[in-house]
Amino acid sequence: MHRPPLPISLVDTLTELLDDRFTTDPNILEDHGKDESSYPCSPPDAVCFPQSKEEVSEILKACSGTRTPVIPFGKGTSVEGQVLARQGGISIDLSRMNNILAVHQEDMDAVVQAGATRMQLNEALNGSGLFFSVDPGADATLGGMAGTRASGTNTVRYGTMRENVLALQVVLADGRIIQTSSRARKSAAGYDLTHLFIGSEGTLGIITELTVKLHPVPECISSAVCPFPSIKDAVNAVIRTIQSGVPIARIEFLDPLQIEAVNKYSNLSCEVAPTLFLEFNGTKNSVEEQSRSVQKIAAEFGGTKFEWSTDDDERHRLWQARHNAYFAALDLRPGCRAKATDVCVPISRLAECIEETAKDIALSSLNITMLGHVGDGNFHLVIVFDPSSRQERAEAESLNQRIVERALTMEGTCTGEHGIGIGKLNFLQAEKGEGVDVMRQIKSALDPLNLMNPGKIFLG
Amino acid sequence: MHRPPLPISLVDTLTELLDDRFTTDPNILEDHGKDESSYPCSPPDAVCFPQSKEEVSEILKACSGTRTPVIPFGKGTSVEGQVLARQGGISIDLSRMNNILAVHQEDMDAVVQAGATRMQLNEALNGSGLFFSVDPGADATLGGMAGTRASGTNTVRYGTMRENVLALQVVLADGRIIQTSSRARKSAAGYDLTHLFIGSEGTLGIITELTVKLHPVPECISSAVCPFPSIKDAVNAVIRTIQSGVPIARIEFLDPLQIEAVNKYSNLSCEVAPTLFLEFNGTKNSVEEQSRSVQKIAAEFGGTKFEWSTDDDERHRLWQARHNAYFAALDLRPGCRAKATDVCVPISRLAECIEETAKDIALSSLNITMLGHVGDGNFHLVIVFDPSSRQERAEAESLNQRIVERALTMEGTCTGEHGIGIGKLNFLQAEKGEGVDVMRQIKSALDPLNLMNPGKIFLG
Repeated sequence: MHRPPLPISLVDTLTELLDDRFTTDPNILEDHGKDESSYPCSPPDAVCFPQSKEEVSEILKACSGTRTPVIPFGKGTSVEGQVLARQGGISIDLSRMNNILAVHQEDMDAVVQAGATRMQLNEALNGSGLFFSVDPGADATLGGMAGTRASGTNTVRYGTMRENVLALQVVLADGRIIQTSSRARKSAAGYDLTHLFIGSEGTLGIITELTVKLHPVPECISSAVCPFPSIKDAVNAVIRTIQSGVPIARIEFLDPLQIEAVNKYSNLSCEVAPTLFLEFNGTKNSVEEQSRSVQKIAAEFGGTKFEWSTDDDERHRLWQARHNAYFAALDLRPGCRAKATDVCVPISRLAECIEETAKDIALSSLNITMLGHVGDGNFHLVIVFDPSSRQERAEAESLNQRIVERALTMEGTCTGEHGIGIGKLNFLQAEKGEGVDVMRQIKSALDPLNLMNPGKIFLG
Repeated sequence: MHRPPLPISLVDTLTELLDDRFTTDPNILEDHGKDESSYPCSPPDAVCFPQSKEEVSEILKACSGTRTPVIPFGKGTSVEGQVLARQGGISIDLSRMNNILAVHQEDMDAVVQAGATRMQLNEALNGSGLFFSVDPGADATLGGMAGTRASGTNTVRYGTMRENVLALQVVLADGRIIQTSSRARKSAAGYDLTHLFIGSEGTLGIITELTVKLHPVPECISSAVCPFPSIKDAVNAVIRTIQSGVPIARIEFLDPLQIEAVNKYSNLSCEVAPTLFLEFNGTKNSVEEQSRSVQKIAAEFGGTKFEWSTDDDERHRLWQARHNAYFAALDLRPGCRAKATDVCVPISRLAECIEETAKDIALSSLNITMLGHVGDGNFHLVIVFDPSSRQERAEAESLNQRIVERALTMEGTCTGEHGIGIGKLNFLQAEKGEGVDVMRQIKSALDPLNLMNPGKIFLG
């Protein structure tokens, strides 16, 4: 695609501001034009590496002044093309703004720059008795995780980014810097700007700092694995567990092909069957009580081989394998890419939704694994396909569409945690109807020139 | 204040639409011009009693067409003047839209019309094994509670309205009806419109329907009362409890004067001392474990008379007394009104904030009680004053200002749960700075004529 070059005045301004932290090096552009999705690379025209919110503000003022698109970039781990520079412009890489600014142990919160990653934060918390809970598979930046309203395996207990961010510092399109909220645990002071920016995928402003909630490291943690005779049994055991009120920390489903992939990729030896990976957090007594309750529920659904353990190494291996499940699925057919579906439905519809989806998988010619955060009603297919095959890509797209349409008829959502990006614009319209017009009105009010990550969430 | 009469065309349209559910009866206007705050009555020009979202939409279209202000009204239990019709216009009373539309036991959610109250919902849930957790003192409507981002005594465990609303149906200024989200437990589909409307105090649209989260009724509930030698000891026991990770359900502080007031008003016989009211939820074992842990913490701070009980009647009496604390304080000086302060600070600053505030109280000539949801860092003064005394009102205002300023220097907020209304416009500006401009931009985008509850949250 032919695009006009960056305005000379902008290049001059940014070079003066950032020196060699403004670059048009083709390798760096290439790195900033792709994410974990299967979309082809769309490099930006330049990349900036700011080191402060003031620099971000100056960049945005300069870009506004020259009508240049701006795309925030963390680690490039998005899965819906959120960081792609489809309309060119400046990628703002926040990786050098990665300081842990404060850990308030008494208040159980931390203030971090947007470029800090979740694992980096947890390493900094080591020994404090506290941890940060949200854990998408990748070691994403916290700013990026807020931008896509990320979640992960322990959302069922600790919530998504939506529940774990207290306040944001945001730089707006015109360079204004705002703080959305304070460190107070709750506030009824005006509109909830924090939640407006969480999940806005860089289309309203650039998150430069976050105040996040921390949780006490549980006194005791146990993990468990349980194979089931059928997908339906596994899912029904999940539903019953949630409804029992057991404060389960993690409850993840993996279908037989995903188990095969995980066994191979992460060297586990799980029985190849519809399987739940579980975790319990609490006092020693409470963890035992929870484990026994869920063991009993599992047995009612034929899950009689429920094995649990409080061994730390075993647990870490299990969850590392789960976090690598996407890569394990990709490894089923080396050289291929994957489309990850991401629907989420009310849990009462989950068994039906998953069973119908299993039928779709059986009819497909592609390698497809199914896994998910079933405690939240959210599950993924990893549809592995050859990106050079138009037919395979079309089949992957068509299956995704079918699954989204099914979820919407079941009062669900097209995306539980991956976001809209460039891949789900039509689904968003189908799901939200006139709500999308309201979103557009807000977008126009805060970014009248449509320069903030244009083409994401909305067309145009 | 002299105001032009309602346009004849509007009166005609609304009379045709609603018949006798459109009224200008002076008694009804009077009832709709005041809330639980001490602000003088500001009646609207007319009151509508719609019975459907379509009627609300028609009313808003008619009001937009004639540039007439619109104020949503639930039960009039707001405490910052949110329902006052300072600029006249139409009060939309949602009390006839009070159906519980659906209870989804498996999904642990309920769909309700905005005029249903929290107690009504909990009565409808009786026997289902589920309950709705958010409990401000009054039996407010759920729409009103969402509008002010209400919370209450068990927020420390179950969250505020922010955490307990999954989706809203909202009618916008121009009559459009939108559904902000689905019943899925999480979603990353576009901007978070649900949270934008929660806490918007009717200034962006009128909430007509809510999908709320429900929680399992705990297997066992115990309550406890514990007096302390000093305010500092009581607050420090709270802080230590929160930090210990005990999943406490309620932890409420009452100062000695508030205890005196509650003893008299609700016929309790608590020792007159700085006191905590507590509640534990869980399995029988877990509740015992939690109670013992907190009893031990209390003892470390001199709270050796920790008495706990699983008796239901005793517990209901205790919490009923707590919910009536505001009225108990008012009863200290019959015929007077009260100003309720509402700051919330990070818990690490709570002891200092409360101790400094206690000094202010000691220096004041007014009757002032102190109580609060200290587990969240949120506490109230109930400043009782004679509304006919300009001097007493000024003293109440000045004390409120002093307390808010203190909270803001401690990284807190001017309002934990009461909202901005007409009383905290300046505080909002001091707290949010340029964030308020962003809120105004959103307001202008969605309500360009400034007809939705004008003068609330923002001036003008």
